[in-house]
Amino acid sequence: MPGTATHSPPVPDAQSCLHAEGPRLSPLVWGAWRSREGEETDTPAKLARFLDGCLELGISSFDHADIYGDYGAETLFGQALKEWGGRRSALQLVTKCDIALLSPQRPSHVVKHYNSCGDHILASVEQSLRNLGTDYVDLLLLHRPDPLMNPDNTADALDRLLRGGMVRHVGVSNHNPSQVRLLQSRLGRPLVTNQIEFSVTTLAPLFDGTLDQALELRMRPMAWSPLGGGGLFTGATDQARRTLAALEAVGAEMGVADPGTVALAWLMRHPSRPVPVLGTSRLARVRTYMQAASLKMQRQHWFQILQASQGHEVP
Amino acid sequence: MPGTATHSPPVPDAQSCLHAEGPRLSPLVWGAWRSREGEETDTPAKLARFLDGCLELGISSFDHADIYGDYGAETLFGQALKEWGGRRSALQLVTKCDIALLSPQRPSHVVKHYNSCGDHILASVEQSLRNLGTDYVDLLLLHRPDPLMNPDNTADALDRLLRGGMVRHVGVSNHNPSQVRLLQSRLGRPLVTNQIEFSVTTLAPLFDGTLDQALELRMRPMAWSPLGGGGLFTGATDQARRTLAALEAVGAEMGVADPGTVALAWLMRHPSRPVPVLGTSRLARVRTYMQAASLKMQRQHWFQILQASQGHEVP
Amino acid sequence: MPGTATHSPPVPDAQSCLHAEGPRLSPLVWGAWRSREGEETDTPAKLARFLDGCLELGISSFDHADIYGDYGAETLFGQALKEWGGRRSALQLVTKCDIALLSPQRPSHVVKHYNSCGDHILASVEQSLRNLGTDYVDLLLLHRPDPLMNPDNTADALDRLLRGGMVRHVGVSNHNPSQVRLLQSRLGRPLVTNQIEFSVTTLAPLFDGTLDQALELRMRPMAWSPLGGGGLFTGATDQARRTLAALEAVGAEMGVADPGTVALAWLMRHPSRPVPVLGTSRLARVRTYMQAASLKMQRQHWFQILQASQGHEVP
Repeated sequence: MPGTATHSPPVPDAQSCLHAEGPRLSPLVWGAWRSREGEETDTPAKLARFLDGCLELGISSFDHADIYGDYGAETLFGQALKEWGGRRSALQLVTKCDIALLSPQRPSHVVKHYNSCGDHILASVEQSLRNLGTDYVDLLLLHRPDPLMNPDNTADALDRLLRGGMVRHVGVSNHNPSQVRLLQSRLGRPLVTNQIEFSVTTLAPLFDGTLDQALELRMRPMAWSPLGGGGLFTGATDQARRTLAALEAVGAEMGVADPGTVALAWLMRHPSRPVPVLGTSRLARVRTYMQAASLKMQRQHWFQILQASQGHEVP
Repeated sequence: MPGTATHSPPVPDAQSCLHAEGPRLSPLVWGAWRSREGEETDTPAKLARFLDGCLELGISSFDHADIYGDYGAETLFGQALKEWGGRRSALQLVTKCDIALLSPQRPSHVVKHYNSCGDHILASVEQSLRNLGTDYVDLLLLHRPDPLMNPDNTADALDRLLRGGMVRHVGVSNHNPSQVRLLQSRLGRPLVTNQIEFSVTTLAPLFDGTLDQALELRMRPMAWSPLGGGGLFTGATDQARRTLAALEAVGAEMGVADPGTVALAWLMRHPSRPVPVLGTSRLARVRTYMQAASLKMQRQHWFQILQASQGHEVP
Repeated sequence: MPGTATHSPPVPDAQSCLHAEGPRLSPLVWGAWRSREGEETDTPAKLARFLDGCLELGISSFDHADIYGDYGAETLFGQALKEWGGRRSALQLVTKCDIALLSPQRPSHVVKHYNSCGDHILASVEQSLRNLGTDYVDLLLLHRPDPLMNPDNTADALDRLLRGGMVRHVGVSNHNPSQVRLLQSRLGRPLVTNQIEFSVTTLAPLFDGTLDQALELRMRPMAWSPLGGGGLFTGATDQARRTLAALEAVGAEMGVADPGTVALAWLMRHPSRPVPVLGTSRLARVRTYMQAASLKMQRQHWFQILQASQGHEVP
């Protein structure tokens, strides 16, 4: 029953931290992006059971954003947390801010935009804490690079949240290297991650400096759509078909039947040690994917998959 | 009458400096690029009156280059300055060097090229000072990145000009981040600006690291063709038509009838606080555009215009 | 006879070093890439004579890689060195590692890949030393940026090779600026070069930050395919035809009949002072190309050739 089981989550070690300063996350993270539509996650009671299931599998970190579920996913998760009733400290909660959606929930919005103003960040985090029913998040991310970001103003708000304890660590999402460098130049504390789109079919971070910077700053990335957003399995493109065939071939050699798990192992093989954010709302899938955390893909297998995705051998 | 009026230019403050080290410029700058063809600027007497008009409007900074007007615009301006007769210290003069045009004025040129050699820079500035009839410029810019720049040699010349007082501050124009970083690595003084093409229809600097770097270095950019080079108003492209419609819609909400003024307010809203360089030679237009300096565009209005220019909402 | 002549190679000076820390290379370098197919270089005896010829011309630096000649070019060169019999210290040997080819020589390879693992680097260098019959190389380069590079592990291996004296200096090849920055951030010694593709028809390094970084780090690049890989002379493209015509026109003004020599002078005119790696296996060609080392191309000639290659004048 949710909340009654005692969990012994995997003992975190330095290897499982995003950054020397923290936070410690589980090897894979569950993302609440589509929780409100998930058959196993769309009510507080179901989500509480799902949460229990994740913890049993070794997933203790949960990725949110103010905007997920049309501004409703955090609230659903907060209700689930109450039903669950376990210790807050057994979980790591990540949330994000700065995207402003066109939504009935936000009638004042007339255009989709970003808002990295200090005042907005403070208000957004306060709302997220209320929604989640907690007094801190382990990690706050700026969701998208705001072309109107005033870095002094934004950094000041982040520093205030850190000092006040509402936020334990800060990072960014979808930021390119010069955007990371700019914000870091004004912050008193290190950005601990850049949550990016990265998968066997989204290779840009390997070559555009994003992962080079992550390694240089010793900041582990998080990866959203770590399975290529679904298109990988529907064979929507030549790239998807070639890549899926390579995942199956490598999987056969590794003794792993599920190509999605091989795709995660491919991603996690990168020396920056990306943490995948799983979007599935089916616990059986989560269980399967968790195998990726204990696989170590061989170098040549990794390049076979890269070659299939790129459609040509490396230069 | 030119030269007889006493001007009280707006009191400069730290906010109006390009950089902590200076110089203080007016909120908008008038550019002499096309002065020799301008109906109100094509003779010394007319240009002296135009200069008076600019000062009355609060524009005290004037942008030049050795090559403007086929190497003749500085001389025209110098003649106008004599007719005007006011205090040199009431003005800020910017000039540039390093482009070498094919021109009857430079018979030794056989190909358009750049020249960032120390000797050329020193000679070019000496000539500019003679043309302008002044013993210093407030700001000297390298006009284009020279692929043959020897950064030690170039920096040495710039440092000599700074020490000698012929040039009060130095900067660059049209340089990308790695070009800025290279030159800065050899200079004893900070580059105070990067004068770039930036407008509602030229958005690249928002995304290619140019404005990130300006913010990181606390170096305000200057913006040339801040109205999109004219194409914005002729509806030459779908982008221009969409953007103009958005400028008009936002202008209606802001109570600003002129879309060009809204375009300038959009540009000046960027946190790097770009200084537009106006290319118009009509004082009535300058008067209209000066309103942009006292407008503060709302965030959503800014994104409405961005979305119109890009043709899609932000990700 | 090879090995019997006494050579007095050009006295090296600070100008001829790739970096303040070394190594000193000859103004041009001969590359062994295609030595096994070269009419004058395909046997140890012939190659020993060729080596003598190079030294007489002032070329004392030789560029290798483990993979050249299907993993056989280093061995051929080592055999030639024995026949030659001169002093090892009269030569500078460069080699590379980290590309893994599909080859009968490497039956374990199932896909072309890269390998920057410390263990692989150490084993590869040991093999190169055995092949070349020497106990050190003057310069070791990482041949291609490995997307799986663990920079700590790679840097550790390079530092060990440097401390052990098997490798006198280290550098990279085909690395972009963020890849250079990453590896440098973990190395105790400076990377002394980036060997890149650069020529009159391969202009990207001028504009993508590669040469800016080389200048900033005071690290001279080496240039492979410095003549455009041959396509320049076969008129394979419009760009090649325009560029060749410009090389001939400029050559006529410089009194240099050979357009390849003009192309090398163009390349060597860059302020980063690139060192061309010659791919020809004909000593007569090498003799011709060596003239480039004593030419200093005029600025306008350089831009005439740039304009021809780009197909338009500079902005």
